[in-house]
Amino acid sequence: MALKELKERYRWISHFSSALSLLHWDLETYMPKKGAKWRAMIIGTISEFVQREMTSDEMGKLIYEAEKEAKSDLDIALVRVAKKEYEKYKKVPPELWGKFAEETAKANNIWEEAKRKSDFSIFAPQLEVVLDIVKEMAERVGYEENKYDALLDFFEPGLKVSDLEKIIPPLREFLTDALEKIESAEKPVDVFKKGKFDLEKQKALSRRVLEVMGYDFEAGRIDTSAHPFTTTINYGDVRVTTRYDENDLKYSFFSTVHEGGHALYDLGIPEEMAGLPIGEGASMGIHESQSRFWENIVARSLPFWKFFKPILEEYFEDFKEYSVEDVWRAANIVERSLIRTEADEVTYNLHIVLRYEIEKALVNDEMKVSEIPQVWNEKMERYIGIRPKKDSEGALQDIHWAHGSFGYFPSYMLGNLYAAQIYDAMKKDLDFDSLVESGDFSKILSWLREKIHSKGKTMEPKELLREVTGEELNVEHFKDYIRKKYSAVYGIEI
Amino acid sequence: MALKELKERYRWISHFSSALSLLHWDLETYMPKKGAKWRAMIIGTISEFVQREMTSDEMGKLIYEAEKEAKSDLDIALVRVAKKEYEKYKKVPPELWGKFAEETAKANNIWEEAKRKSDFSIFAPQLEVVLDIVKEMAERVGYEENKYDALLDFFEPGLKVSDLEKIIPPLREFLTDALEKIESAEKPVDVFKKGKFDLEKQKALSRRVLEVMGYDFEAGRIDTSAHPFTTTINYGDVRVTTRYDENDLKYSFFSTVHEGGHALYDLGIPEEMAGLPIGEGASMGIHESQSRFWENIVARSLPFWKFFKPILEEYFEDFKEYSVEDVWRAANIVERSLIRTEADEVTYNLHIVLRYEIEKALVNDEMKVSEIPQVWNEKMERYIGIRPKKDSEGALQDIHWAHGSFGYFPSYMLGNLYAAQIYDAMKKDLDFDSLVESGDFSKILSWLREKIHSKGKTMEPKELLREVTGEELNVEHFKDYIRKKYSAVYGIEI
Repeated sequence: MALKELKERYRWISHFSSALSLLHWDLETYMPKKGAKWRAMIIGTISEFVQREMTSDEMGKLIYEAEKEAKSDLDIALVRVAKKEYEKYKKVPPELWGKFAEETAKANNIWEEAKRKSDFSIFAPQLEVVLDIVKEMAERVGYEENKYDALLDFFEPGLKVSDLEKIIPPLREFLTDALEKIESAEKPVDVFKKGKFDLEKQKALSRRVLEVMGYDFEAGRIDTSAHPFTTTINYGDVRVTTRYDENDLKYSFFSTVHEGGHALYDLGIPEEMAGLPIGEGASMGIHESQSRFWENIVARSLPFWKFFKPILEEYFEDFKEYSVEDVWRAANIVERSLIRTEADEVTYNLHIVLRYEIEKALVNDEMKVSEIPQVWNEKMERYIGIRPKKDSEGALQDIHWAHGSFGYFPSYMLGNLYAAQIYDAMKKDLDFDSLVESGDFSKILSWLREKIHSKGKTMEPKELLREVTGEELNVEHFKDYIRKKYSAVYGIEI
Repeated sequence: MALKELKERYRWISHFSSALSLLHWDLETYMPKKGAKWRAMIIGTISEFVQREMTSDEMGKLIYEAEKEAKSDLDIALVRVAKKEYEKYKKVPPELWGKFAEETAKANNIWEEAKRKSDFSIFAPQLEVVLDIVKEMAERVGYEENKYDALLDFFEPGLKVSDLEKIIPPLREFLTDALEKIESAEKPVDVFKKGKFDLEKQKALSRRVLEVMGYDFEAGRIDTSAHPFTTTINYGDVRVTTRYDENDLKYSFFSTVHEGGHALYDLGIPEEMAGLPIGEGASMGIHESQSRFWENIVARSLPFWKFFKPILEEYFEDFKEYSVEDVWRAANIVERSLIRTEADEVTYNLHIVLRYEIEKALVNDEMKVSEIPQVWNEKMERYIGIRPKKDSEGALQDIHWAHGSFGYFPSYMLGNLYAAQIYDAMKKDLDFDSLVESGDFSKILSWLREKIHSKGKTMEPKELLREVTGEELNVEHFKDYIRKKYSAVYGIEI
């Protein structure tokens, strides 16, 4: 009885979360400017309400009672996740969640303006407000070793600064080394930046590649926003956004594939889990593994371009001038560049390291918000060897801090590492290259659905990774992948 | 204290209503099909929640306490409206509101399918579900003379069947008579249906005419939906939709102007009233008076086309072939036609009479849902002299019943009558014709803002009409308007 009531209660609350998702989606896609002030208040109110309901004493009682009744694996998992999250979120008062939601909704708009004007000082005061709330949350949630651990756990359950400190230095060394070797080779021509790419055609191409991947347009849509994102409004409605640049086809194309990877994950979560705490991805890192898998491992592979180049030519016939290898190489250009979302696989994790270090310092009061642009630029120069000339291509490029998502960035790194490990496991079951080359993505999607998507959040990320790949997180898979791929792309030995 | 708390409470609840507005807007514009099932549940949950909060005992207590504190006109009006609505809505249990919202959201989708397939029998079972809920609501709310009165009061406070029975017969006679006289004259050429009208250009034209009217695109937007509507998401965000027909420019153009009229009303309600029960239009009839004013009295006038024809030619240069009078006459073609939203001003109210009679019969169990198409077709033949060949152009043309809006249609009739009366009052203050001819709509909008929009719902419609026009509802204004205008359009004596 308690179990049934618990599920009904979660589903009831999830209806309000769905409204919140739509309010957010709309805020970033279609909302007229002058609605912003009230929209922020509305998001604040409903977020606070949802948090209050999720952490009510009544809910706690239901969870503890349901724990005794749970028999099936699904119900046991449900109660485990429910209990963990209840106990964690209970530590943060609902008013603070409301304030967080309201201030981040405001920050979203201010960030947009600051980015447009490329002036970090416009954003700084509101970012301080958001950061203060985030720090208070971290304090309230608690941590053992580092305040930043409290935030990491929101996105990657169990992840700690001490884990990252083990992974990061050798990875950084490997990547820096690879980057130097690659730089000695000849740089491919970026055929994705040759000429102007009509925006309407780019939009059509984005739809096409999502269709090819198996994204169901009756259960989603694609729109345009300042920063690409995926959002689940409710079961049967998982939307992606992207943005377009007339001079760079690569940008919209790979962002779309990336978001499509996220969307396929959420669309693969069974309806019986929908609206429950287990009805979402296992963690942000696992989520990013799916988006990065499609973006990099699938869509930047040679077999993919053997299949997709003729389709691309239907939209942009200039590509007929190039060989499949030209396009594939262009999709894998490695360079010291400024923008994370456009970064290649070799430098990408270096962008993450930079953000991770800044976040960690901010949260631990080792750095001030006003110092961000300067520190950002120095670290960019040190790690990637290039210095931003303006804030819009530096510290203002990402929306994450406006969203209060401190602790999220490391998920991207884990996503890359997980993806490579999952890819190696998949290749034991499937002839990946021939499937991709023939444009048959259904078996690949089914594999991911069965092994990962259909599990929702019933397993901790570590457990899921072990079940899918047979081992713990092992950075060697990623390093091998990078070595093999970029040796081939650049015709060198990495 | 209670007054302050009451306002805060209303604003808090209004945030959930805003979410509902957005969920509805999205349902009719961008929602992917497979999201429909969950969306209906979500709308049901939140509607029920809102109604529960609005009619809680705590709310009642606050209202009665606030009543003692109210001193300013605004606060007195607030408490009066709050009390009236509280006492009325309190009679309907929140579960019934939830069921209403959920079943009408379902009906919305079923209606769309039925209309597409032009098959009323697809819609009938769900319509029965909705009608049963509506009848139960009417019973619970209560009435003195006619069950339908209980529904009329939701849209036009105080309006009764007995009022309508006084207005309708002479009005119908007048209109039938005018229609016959007009038919003896030569019918103008419908230049709005000559040729194909590119949809993108129609969209641009729709935006343009809204701009001309003074609609602020930073506080709203225009999108496409099966049935045009206006929705206030929150303060500073009032959106319109329209739909486009490649073969008929009139359709999108006048729908846009109509919805624009609604939107200007809501955008003119002061922020201090936003989120409170007084922060909306005085009634649906007054709301329709604003949309019909802009659609018919402004945009179908000769001065308007003197101003707007050159603008129209920027989008569709074929109009250069016609004179201003040609276009004006085409905008005012009177004919026995099937679709209400495309009907002219002379036959429009006859369409309303038909719907009113059917609704009244359905609510009073004098007719079955399954009989609707047959009764509809017979009445169409009797009143307008034309018989639908299929349900999509007959009983399935309007979305109102799917929305459960029984009792709404008479508002359109009142809107027409109010608009003509307001127009006569406005002409005492403004040189309407010269302002419209010079394209200066700001004074007209300011007049409406000052006299009507800025008052929100602080006055009952009857009181507002008296204050604005100096008299009670007087059908003669409408009859005079029709006589003068159509005598001029058709060169006859009506």
